[in-house]
Amino acid sequence: MEDIIKNLRKIDSDIQCLIYTRSLLEWDQETYMPGGAIDGRAEQIALIESLIHDKITNPKVGESFDKIGINDNCLADPKSMGTHYKSLLELEKSFLREMYREYRRNIRLPKELVYKIAKQTSLAQAKWVEARKASDFNIFAPNLKTLIQLTIQKADYLGYEKDRYEPLLDEYEPWVKPEQIDKIFSKLSVRLKPLLSKIVNSRKKIDEKIIERTFPIAKQREFGISILESMGFDFTRGRLDISAHPFTTTLGSSDIRLTTRYNENYFNSGIFGIIHECGHGLYELGFSKEIQGTLLARGTSLGIHESQSRLWENIVGRGKSFWYAYFPALKKLFADVLSDISLDTFYEAINAVKPSFIRVEADEVTYNLHIILRYNLERALISGDLSADDLPDAWREESEKLLGIIPEKDSEGVLQDIHWSMGAFGYFPTYTLGNLYSAQFYRNMQNEIPDIEDQIENKNLRPVLNWLKENIHQYGSIYPADQLCLKVTGENLKPDYFIDYLERKYKGIYEF
Amino acid sequence: MEDIIKNLRKIDSDIQCLIYTRSLLEWDQETYMPGGAIDGRAEQIALIESLIHDKITNPKVGESFDKIGINDNCLADPKSMGTHYKSLLELEKSFLREMYREYRRNIRLPKELVYKIAKQTSLAQAKWVEARKASDFNIFAPNLKTLIQLTIQKADYLGYEKDRYEPLLDEYEPWVKPEQIDKIFSKLSVRLKPLLSKIVNSRKKIDEKIIERTFPIAKQREFGISILESMGFDFTRGRLDISAHPFTTTLGSSDIRLTTRYNENYFNSGIFGIIHECGHGLYELGFSKEIQGTLLARGTSLGIHESQSRLWENIVGRGKSFWYAYFPALKKLFADVLSDISLDTFYEAINAVKPSFIRVEADEVTYNLHIILRYNLERALISGDLSADDLPDAWREESEKLLGIIPEKDSEGVLQDIHWSMGAFGYFPTYTLGNLYSAQFYRNMQNEIPDIEDQIENKNLRPVLNWLKENIHQYGSIYPADQLCLKVTGENLKPDYFIDYLERKYKGIYEF
Repeated sequence: MEDIIKNLRKIDSDIQCLIYTRSLLEWDQETYMPGGAIDGRAEQIALIESLIHDKITNPKVGESFDKIGINDNCLADPKSMGTHYKSLLELEKSFLREMYREYRRNIRLPKELVYKIAKQTSLAQAKWVEARKASDFNIFAPNLKTLIQLTIQKADYLGYEKDRYEPLLDEYEPWVKPEQIDKIFSKLSVRLKPLLSKIVNSRKKIDEKIIERTFPIAKQREFGISILESMGFDFTRGRLDISAHPFTTTLGSSDIRLTTRYNENYFNSGIFGIIHECGHGLYELGFSKEIQGTLLARGTSLGIHESQSRLWENIVGRGKSFWYAYFPALKKLFADVLSDISLDTFYEAINAVKPSFIRVEADEVTYNLHIILRYNLERALISGDLSADDLPDAWREESEKLLGIIPEKDSEGVLQDIHWSMGAFGYFPTYTLGNLYSAQFYRNMQNEIPDIEDQIENKNLRPVLNWLKENIHQYGSIYPADQLCLKVTGENLKPDYFIDYLERKYKGIYEF
Repeated sequence: MEDIIKNLRKIDSDIQCLIYTRSLLEWDQETYMPGGAIDGRAEQIALIESLIHDKITNPKVGESFDKIGINDNCLADPKSMGTHYKSLLELEKSFLREMYREYRRNIRLPKELVYKIAKQTSLAQAKWVEARKASDFNIFAPNLKTLIQLTIQKADYLGYEKDRYEPLLDEYEPWVKPEQIDKIFSKLSVRLKPLLSKIVNSRKKIDEKIIERTFPIAKQREFGISILESMGFDFTRGRLDISAHPFTTTLGSSDIRLTTRYNENYFNSGIFGIIHECGHGLYELGFSKEIQGTLLARGTSLGIHESQSRLWENIVGRGKSFWYAYFPALKKLFADVLSDISLDTFYEAINAVKPSFIRVEADEVTYNLHIILRYNLERALISGDLSADDLPDAWREESEKLLGIIPEKDSEGVLQDIHWSMGAFGYFPTYTLGNLYSAQFYRNMQNEIPDIEDQIENKNLRPVLNWLKENIHQYGSIYPADQLCLKVTGENLKPDYFIDYLERKYKGIYEF
């Protein structure tokens, strides 16, 4: 038994090494790679990908699971696990659970389908870029249709109980079922809409335009680095670079790379990109030594990962205490630009709420309505209730219903996100789960550290990081998201904390 | 037969992909990787390394060579190849020759020895850094001894006819025998010494100190980029970054990365590093389409590779025509620094000759004496005539004999180069071969393009690149170095062209 697990650990360690290597190939592609190198790079990534697939689907892996007595039934009901399994340490159980999930997922998908999807997503992404540029959904529609068909096949191979969306969601948010999302989202939208209407109808005037003054990029970077240092990002174990779309990637236990993009005339882009990605990065830097370099050294779900970025970006980073602490330094750095601006004016500007077309630029309140819109549409696409041809109309309809506005151009509507062109169906809801988790976690942090806002006002962000490390980061994927939430907050995920947080915050800003 | 070669091509193509990937891991380590990531990175490189080894030593590769009828005898005497082989295209023959060399080298070395050497070089490098810092050879001596023992074992496994140094040299300079180097080097030193003594005894005074004025790094970079563009370096297929030691690496057919280092108070470092590395880079960028992505897409020997970097760096880049063309722009860029300096003064300063301790800072004349010194010593170490303990004394002795000066500190003598700590015995002579080839090639270029110096004076460097592409770059490793030399210049490598070049150039400068 010990030997079996030791062998699985060796295979996993090789796989993690290859995953880190693939991540470097991808990171380099987005940051420093010369443009002409793209074809060679695609081949390199595909080769590493296939080596990872070979390692996880090696027959020895399957035999090992047989010997330990782990199968699908065990995953569904851990109590049904054999006595061998029951005698293991908690950490080993988690390791086997996650490794079996990887194995099962890979072994169920025929190699040809994986190859077809990989090829099709690469084509579809190129078409999506073209379509978005031309703001013409028709350019992208044929590829999207093919991708939906392939995704349906994928879901069928992976298997599900009631709903074909299950295995898709499960890829990003393990163990969560679509009906749970349905419940949470319907509760959420019931309470979001009246809040939004109060804000929209408020007489408070906010000067959002100050964010669009000219903020030289070198100084934005300088300020961003200082904030990263305050947040506790360790530059001996990570970096900050520039890419077209901000992201965080892990190239090793002590090698976390953040990127952001700067817009000289839109201050929010650079700094909130940095804080958001740093939230992800601190999670990745915080895994305990004993799980480093294993498949447990990753976020336990995308929702939990997003909770870390959102907690830092929104609850901390767009909070009054934070800017009480850092606005003086910002004002000093951008003396010419901000001399006439007070802390309150600045705080309101970075928090202005307004229904808008583009998700990634949305405020904290309307953001989740953008997600619900996408979630509704992708469920219908996967179930077959909606055909790709009808998607632009359906988008406009949902947009009016949820946000009260209708995009005139496809580029501001159905073509704005890259996800579907990457075959990432089931991904969007994790963004909102992240928001909900973040508020629930933060509420517990406040209960346990009653003076946390004072600490932030005093530029001491360490208590925030330490609480997250202790309660969330160190565990990686040892606990599934729902168990982690229960362990940390004493209850299951509830949208109430998030709504309460929003209501309190925006009551203060919009004075309703 | 066709299928066999097709399979070998597929294996080779995967190996090249893995080599490019390893190169990215290494490039990143030297340029952007955060310091704390080193352990994880070493594991990643070791894993990719072992995957490459697995691929080339796959029994199917050996079987394929058996079926084609290629064995060691064939390598020694291509005429003895079977009829199968004889019917192949030239390109396929070259491919099989190079692949068989790779296979043979890898299959002959026991995995444990490869692992031991890898581990020992990693330890030895760390000790070498420590020893160099403390300028104390004793710190490094035990590791060097072990490495020499392991290298001797390696040579014995690889096999040789007369001299254990053969397989070591062959790794870097295929097909060249130590006795050929002996002959060339003795001819060379016979003519170098009187030249050096004429220079040292000349009454000409050169103001070398102007190179040590303050040259802001941002401007050095700007100037360097403009020179790269003039040389025809394609930035859509490559980059320039900074590292502790300049190097060039290939991450794909269209992804060549150069690095340099800048010293604000030593102008030569940055710019000649850039020109030198660009010489390597242009070779790598110039392989013909039909060999790209195969093992033929690499320099046919280190000597030939070095001929490309030296031709650009020294013959072109330290030439009068080059600075006639670019000194005005340099003077404009560094107006404060160079206002009192004439083209002649500058040209003399960057070409000043003076016996010195450090190889990488040596001038064109004394550089090769540094190499002969190392060559003599490493041959004695490998033959067993010299023990590692006696190395510092032997170094001082050789230094006095060849350069007329004796280093006082180990850091300026025996500890200055990293090569031996990496187990790279047999590498040094390729530097001098590079110098010799460069002069022989350039002479032929001058014969074929009589107005080449005028072109350079007119800032037109394209004829130089085009000649090199056409005669050398495109072929990669299709022709072994000696065949290439014969094909390009009509004769074997002769040190005379290099000496003639030096005599003409330095007669002009030192007026003897």
